[in-house]
Amino acid sequence: MSGDTTDLIHPVILCGGSGTRLWPASRESFPKQFIPLAEAHRSSFQATAARVTDGSVFARPAIITANDARFIVAEQLAQAGLAADILLEPARRDSAAAVTVAALHAAARNPNALVLILAADHVVGDDAAFLSAVRAASLGAKAGFIMTLGIVPTSPSTAYGYIQPGSPLPGAAGEAGSRKVERFLEKPKADRAEQLIAEGALWNSGYFLFRADVMLDELRTHSPEVLAAAEASLAAATRDLDFLRLDTEAFLQSPQISVDYAVMEHTTRAAVLPVSFPWSDIGTWGALWEVSPQDADGNATRGRVALHGTRNSLVHSEGELLTTVVGLDDVVVVSTPDAVLVTSRERGGEVKNLVEQLRARKEPEADAHRLMYRPWGNYQRIDIGTRFQVKRITVKPGARLSLQKHFHRAEHWVVVHGTAEVTVDDQVTLVHENEAIYLPIGCVHRLANPGKIPLELIEVQVGSYTGEDDIIRIEDVYGR
Amino acid sequence: MSGDTTDLIHPVILCGGSGTRLWPASRESFPKQFIPLAEAHRSSFQATAARVTDGSVFARPAIITANDARFIVAEQLAQAGLAADILLEPARRDSAAAVTVAALHAAARNPNALVLILAADHVVGDDAAFLSAVRAASLGAKAGFIMTLGIVPTSPSTAYGYIQPGSPLPGAAGEAGSRKVERFLEKPKADRAEQLIAEGALWNSGYFLFRADVMLDELRTHSPEVLAAAEASLAAATRDLDFLRLDTEAFLQSPQISVDYAVMEHTTRAAVLPVSFPWSDIGTWGALWEVSPQDADGNATRGRVALHGTRNSLVHSEGELLTTVVGLDDVVVVSTPDAVLVTSRERGGEVKNLVEQLRARKEPEADAHRLMYRPWGNYQRIDIGTRFQVKRITVKPGARLSLQKHFHRAEHWVVVHGTAEVTVDDQVTLVHENEAIYLPIGCVHRLANPGKIPLELIEVQVGSYTGEDDIIRIEDVYGR
Repeated sequence: MSGDTTDLIHPVILCGGSGTRLWPASRESFPKQFIPLAEAHRSSFQATAARVTDGSVFARPAIITANDARFIVAEQLAQAGLAADILLEPARRDSAAAVTVAALHAAARNPNALVLILAADHVVGDDAAFLSAVRAASLGAKAGFIMTLGIVPTSPSTAYGYIQPGSPLPGAAGEAGSRKVERFLEKPKADRAEQLIAEGALWNSGYFLFRADVMLDELRTHSPEVLAAAEASLAAATRDLDFLRLDTEAFLQSPQISVDYAVMEHTTRAAVLPVSFPWSDIGTWGALWEVSPQDADGNATRGRVALHGTRNSLVHSEGELLTTVVGLDDVVVVSTPDAVLVTSRERGGEVKNLVEQLRARKEPEADAHRLMYRPWGNYQRIDIGTRFQVKRITVKPGARLSLQKHFHRAEHWVVVHGTAEVTVDDQVTLVHENEAIYLPIGCVHRLANPGKIPLELIEVQVGSYTGEDDIIRIEDVYGR
Repeated sequence: MSGDTTDLIHPVILCGGSGTRLWPASRESFPKQFIPLAEAHRSSFQATAARVTDGSVFARPAIITANDARFIVAEQLAQAGLAADILLEPARRDSAAAVTVAALHAAARNPNALVLILAADHVVGDDAAFLSAVRAASLGAKAGFIMTLGIVPTSPSTAYGYIQPGSPLPGAAGEAGSRKVERFLEKPKADRAEQLIAEGALWNSGYFLFRADVMLDELRTHSPEVLAAAEASLAAATRDLDFLRLDTEAFLQSPQISVDYAVMEHTTRAAVLPVSFPWSDIGTWGALWEVSPQDADGNATRGRVALHGTRNSLVHSEGELLTTVVGLDDVVVVSTPDAVLVTSRERGGEVKNLVEQLRARKEPEADAHRLMYRPWGNYQRIDIGTRFQVKRITVKPGARLSLQKHFHRAEHWVVVHGTAEVTVDDQVTLVHENEAIYLPIGCVHRLANPGKIPLELIEVQVGSYTGEDDIIRIEDVYGR
């Protein structure tokens, strides 16, 4: 790989999943790829983005994500000091549409661009090995193959699809280890998985590396509807702040199909590079336990945890809750400020069914977190009672909330950190630490942080109705 | 039993335990006998007190409790509409000292008074059967025996001591089923328990029924130090509001010993009435599961709970936390606003060891609850951060907090329900719902509820130190 920009690989990170099997940490409002799970201080999305920053290998990355996650993506990139294009999908249409958009986006800069598709929620244990694999696979991609990375299995997992490799690719790509794909295989039963491993099959990691023109050719042949929808949605895309918003109507024309079904199972150009770096898609809490550091008793813990007579368990306390286990082995306990999950390492996949049950019961914790992220900062409810609610609100330096009013509640704001600029009707007031201000029912108001440090305030709402939907937005800098 | 007051039974409820094996619901600051556990809306203390209110059988009850629990006892009696004498033990000296105080307290009214000792944390499934048993046992007590109730075992429990019954008592007492005690037996191993049951042994319930003069005679013979300490502490007792406070110095002279060791194992007057009403001392969460209503899957749940693929488990959510279990059987999960316990039904006894570990780590949740009871009402922390803390405070109608000041924090109070009377230095202000007041650092202030409904307010503390011990009490109606 040289410094020649036409040789650079264009990384595209697919960031659209919701990860309900990792509930209650992962929820629709803040899914698993954005949560520090395998690492304590960095999300898998941040780790994935950081993995493709070597400017001698990679072009500026693109992120394809859901509309609701856009501010989280922007915030996490900023936190990590990374820059990327952010493309917004108007709806979930599975991976084929996203991969097609990725190919078109890269092709606009260079028709023969190499494109690397990465999932935001995978964990890789060895960045250098990953980079070597990408370099090796790029030889096959340049030669016109749609490359995948096939992980050499470390256990007869039934949670992954498998790839049966065939004959070596011709030339340098084959010398570097790449082989044609003989067959893609669905997630197997346990005994079949043993057999597949004996036959040399590999885990299907979901990484793809291809020349944009090659992928677009294959799409034209095997999935013209997906290609047409992606082309139209990109042509009619609009810029919204720092985001590129794909056109909704056009995008919705795409069939909901994975790139595996749309292209890979039909193309004759599928190839695979066997790799053996530590890797997981963290599909369940049990899978996270496997890749987490463990103590002498085999326990992986985080946060305020106390154990007695407990082994081989994962116990995470994600808030202030003191989370304890006595006399149980092989369990998973995850506590958050508003929900607790207790399950076994083996049966963690059924958490998905639990979340469906919670949705059917209309429990707010099914999809929403207590801590809600907003472009201006975040808020969380800290207490609620009859005719009142209390929130802690954090506003980033320089940020401002919408100009708004409420019909059913008055609000008392007590600044506990930083300085607030509060507009009430026509009055603008600076409210400092240990000062309070009162917002009567119906007043038009706005909160901003004019300072250099985060603003924290306690909001006490009093009124007959304190629901989130009692808000009239009169003006908003974030276009909401 | 006639209406003749000299025949009335003097119930004495021992209320001093701390119940750490039922952590995190039960803690030193609010132990298990005061928590609605077996019943949803009544504590076992309240149920126990209500069990001895039949005025044709029982005299006014006495409660013997720890100093720290005095306001809880008074509050729970008031809630249940019950009246009782409340005697305060200055320290824990096990059951011998408390039983001796009970005997002396009854003897002061009638030297031959019948005294019934009850533990506040036991659960009885049939009040009528309990009352019949007490009536039957009273025949033996009147005849000069120290009666116990021996529960006919329903399982080879290793959690209880056993009593081997001997020959029937003479006369009416024997005809009513009472027998001499052949032997008291310590908690057995499992195989020994089977054998004991085969031999007709009974669970030692810890109920005692005796004539005051008989018990005092036996104490004089077998435990004169306990008797002397109890006599002196009662003679020098002081009245404090509605409480009778035993003299500390005198009480501390008592050896720390159970009434079983001090008297029952030595006396020749021990007798037992076999009884078979449903009974438990709720020693562990597993024991609570056994006496709790269960659904078709054998699950006993309370509060915000969701289960998937879970059987024969106890899952309690005591606050707002959504508490969930997936794919586990025979477990116990208890969540409270600040702590979560996960254990098995079988190994719940080890929770005691966990609490010891938490104490060693100086975790505040080991002994203190988030919700703290005070004579004037209660408070709980709802948020804490750098240089601030937020509490919800509830004040009973007519109650007033101490006149106080703080050196390190200012306070903002927002009234969300009811009306507050706030004294700040020399100013008295009424603060109504949806009004706020500011208390600068160092001001002398007092909060009272002059109204007819509970007062609720949100307190935002701001300052360099927000610990509970930054308080100077200038005056207090509760003598603290």
